[in-house]
Amino acid sequence: MSQLLLNHLAGRSQAGSGAGTPLLDPVLGTELARVDATGLDLAAGFAFAREQAGPALRALTYAQRGALLAAVVKVLQANRDAYYEISTANSGTVKNDTAIDVDGGIYTLGTYAKLGESLGERRHLLDGEAARLGKDPAFQSQHLMVPTRGVALFINAFNFPGWGLWEKAGPALLSGVPVIVKPATATAWLTQRMVQDVVAAGVLPAGALSVVCGSSAGLLDPLQPFDVVSFTGSAETAAIIRSHPAVTHGSVRVNIEADSINSALLLPGEAAGSEAFELLVKEAAREMTQKSGQKCTAIRRIFVPEALYGAAAGAIAARLAKTTVGNPRNESVRMGSLVSRAQLASVREGLAALKQHTEVLHDGAGQAPVDADPAVACCVGPTLLGARDADGNALVHDLEVFGPVATLLPYRDAAHAFALVRRGQGSLVASLYGSDAAALGSAALELADSHGRVHVVSPEVAALHTGHGNVMPQSLHGGPGRAGGGEELGGVRALNFYHRRAAVQAATAVLAHLN
Amino acid sequence: MSQLLLNHLAGRSQAGSGAGTPLLDPVLGTELARVDATGLDLAAGFAFAREQAGPALRALTYAQRGALLAAVVKVLQANRDAYYEISTANSGTVKNDTAIDVDGGIYTLGTYAKLGESLGERRHLLDGEAARLGKDPAFQSQHLMVPTRGVALFINAFNFPGWGLWEKAGPALLSGVPVIVKPATATAWLTQRMVQDVVAAGVLPAGALSVVCGSSAGLLDPLQPFDVVSFTGSAETAAIIRSHPAVTHGSVRVNIEADSINSALLLPGEAAGSEAFELLVKEAAREMTQKSGQKCTAIRRIFVPEALYGAAAGAIAARLAKTTVGNPRNESVRMGSLVSRAQLASVREGLAALKQHTEVLHDGAGQAPVDADPAVACCVGPTLLGARDADGNALVHDLEVFGPVATLLPYRDAAHAFALVRRGQGSLVASLYGSDAAALGSAALELADSHGRVHVVSPEVAALHTGHGNVMPQSLHGGPGRAGGGEELGGVRALNFYHRRAAVQAATAVLAHLN
Repeated sequence: MSQLLLNHLAGRSQAGSGAGTPLLDPVLGTELARVDATGLDLAAGFAFAREQAGPALRALTYAQRGALLAAVVKVLQANRDAYYEISTANSGTVKNDTAIDVDGGIYTLGTYAKLGESLGERRHLLDGEAARLGKDPAFQSQHLMVPTRGVALFINAFNFPGWGLWEKAGPALLSGVPVIVKPATATAWLTQRMVQDVVAAGVLPAGALSVVCGSSAGLLDPLQPFDVVSFTGSAETAAIIRSHPAVTHGSVRVNIEADSINSALLLPGEAAGSEAFELLVKEAAREMTQKSGQKCTAIRRIFVPEALYGAAAGAIAARLAKTTVGNPRNESVRMGSLVSRAQLASVREGLAALKQHTEVLHDGAGQAPVDADPAVACCVGPTLLGARDADGNALVHDLEVFGPVATLLPYRDAAHAFALVRRGQGSLVASLYGSDAAALGSAALELADSHGRVHVVSPEVAALHTGHGNVMPQSLHGGPGRAGGGEELGGVRALNFYHRRAAVQAATAVLAHLN
Repeated sequence: MSQLLLNHLAGRSQAGSGAGTPLLDPVLGTELARVDATGLDLAAGFAFAREQAGPALRALTYAQRGALLAAVVKVLQANRDAYYEISTANSGTVKNDTAIDVDGGIYTLGTYAKLGESLGERRHLLDGEAARLGKDPAFQSQHLMVPTRGVALFINAFNFPGWGLWEKAGPALLSGVPVIVKPATATAWLTQRMVQDVVAAGVLPAGALSVVCGSSAGLLDPLQPFDVVSFTGSAETAAIIRSHPAVTHGSVRVNIEADSINSALLLPGEAAGSEAFELLVKEAAREMTQKSGQKCTAIRRIFVPEALYGAAAGAIAARLAKTTVGNPRNESVRMGSLVSRAQLASVREGLAALKQHTEVLHDGAGQAPVDADPAVACCVGPTLLGARDADGNALVHDLEVFGPVATLLPYRDAAHAFALVRRGQGSLVASLYGSDAAALGSAALELADSHGRVHVVSPEVAALHTGHGNVMPQSLHGGPGRAGGGEELGGVRALNFYHRRAAVQAATAVLAHLN
């Protein structure tokens, strides 16, 4: 029987008392480890974090907490090779995709370490300037941001077990809020190992970082009004979290990042073969295949002027045809597997549904995986679909197939394109491709309210831009509507979720003591 | 039969098709008017606001929308006498209390009119500076705040039919978001009349301001992902709103302002009869009696050093004894009635519950109302309760009696006082009284995370401070935990709720077009 991974809660390692759920290698089908949370005293664990780790963290300044994050970065860097091995084995990722998760997580954490240093020797933040409450300046209102005295519970998705932890934990710990992470079971090993390494290194106060692996049953029950919960995953689970009494009655603050039918849009006026056209083609193919398309931010809909539909289909398909899929241990392989049989089935099911309404422009479904047993490996080649009637095809705007799948859609004019993009009902990101700065700026403004991020690619930034789907810590991550309405990252903005805003109305002499 | 008040929806006046619910004079018991929303096509009304009024508002700049608010202010000022009459008749308020609702609403709206002017000829707001996404400054991230393309639904409380509308509608309309208000039925007349006057004056685009009076059945059903809903009222109704599919699945943004067991705290070291002591006494008595204690922000718990318990009890009771209660039309009356028989019953029930755990320090229950029939008028005198064992008395920290009722509680030292205040589980406001600026600043920081506002009263601002319970548009209104976790007002911060944040990642030349 494989090893049972330990939970870390209440400042100590704790084994679940059940048989455990196996974690599998999605390429080889072998059992890697087991996770279990049966019998854990969650209420005691949450209370330990809230009452022991919280005050210890909040006694530190932002700069001191930033230094803790820098120490965590060092621990993670020292164990980086092990994380690559775990990622390959448990997530089926090629090295470039592992890097997004592991090195991306370390980079994001390092960014918040530096941010802590820049915030300095303070324990709360001023929010704006003092404002007069009347003609006499002797009585004023000063807004503050102060850390919440609770815990941060993260319920995370299977696609980023590394980055998904640290992009949330960095801002939380920097804010003085202890973290309890519940990774998605299928790929929980990397999260568990990273927490174990950090806990073992003793760089954080006891209870500041906890991990619970396995079932999420009862996980929300210990939440109290000053706690927060951040969830990444399906809209169905998001609705369950939002309906929990801790949220509906206790006003526990919730951040949701749910699914999203993201768009790439080639602006009107760009010819086939133009620089902007080629940039769209390259980015679309890259987004479809990176992480085997298992990114919340991946391009799902590709919009081009109707005259360019055929040219775009051909160009993207030609790039996809070069993608080698299979065992990530084989150096010739460019794209690994999906994370599980369940995901493979889900992608196949979604593809079948979309195919009823679309034409297949490039079919990767039948591609034999390199160096892997097709009956075992969760591998699937990239598939580009197309629909010439973008208006009449509701499903392509509504169904997210969480794999290497996207749909090409033609539009008549800019207004038509914007209306089609908006049929996603709120997305994490849209990318725009063009060469006219004014038109790009105008299009970005048009789409800003329905996207957390608008990524603009023009020829002068061809070699500089950070990628449609790549989440940079400097920029907001989240989106309105069906994307969940959440806000993560965005530099210092990420700290808002873990702070409470308050106005202090007082004599100016009293306000001087708040600095 | 009394007049049936008209709803205003879909850009026109609409009568409900039912018999209607009567609105009563809470002092005289007479029927004033009826409200009814039976048979309204809510979906069509919401769509009209979203599709007609929204684009019309968003085509304007902040300065232009600010000018619209200024025009609304003029309409309200022109009809002010009628609002005073309606308030007296339907809310049972004395003139000073009417002023808080009517003039407070107009002042708040005027503040947002001026804010619009200061934001200038723009249609979106920049959020911070552009940030580099790498070493090369040619590709950067700029955050924006852009108006949401939806409607704002307000479900309001019975205690502020005037202010409660405008403190929300000001920021919403200034943001370019159409407003649909559903006032609490008992006191709906003032809200309905104000909307009717503004609609009749034609100063806003058609559908920018709607009112639905009567039952709230089905009111959330037409909400779509880019709409927002703001609720003021009970925790029970808040939980129902939060559990609606529009919120749980559609990510409709929700702002809640629920009940709150607010505190007043005399800091240690102040003697009986000192200036700080007298300021606490005065403010406690004022807060208990203003609006007959029907304010979400009113002081419910009064904390004093244990040695001052008797002195504080005597001093507050002496002030309360001077409060004349009764018919607000009688010039000798200082405090009017509660808004309804239902509220009178609720206050009596709450008082009975608290009295089982407390001693009565001043009893206004038996006070005969001036110029009113005690069997009809919803009048109740102020009651000060006290509990010498503040720790052992859970109910006083948990039960909000929404009337002229507060409880005096002694504490041992500052840490004990802070712990007791925090037993409110998150409140709208705490007020601090003292003469040591450093101690006041330190106490404000200690309590900031569990309060939306900390109001500090020291002798030098005795004549300047704006009052514990008075909500100033410059300061945040809302509170964490049981106070609902919402954020309103706070100057320009109020616009956040009606805007969406987005990051635009682009070439610096493209970002130049976002200004």
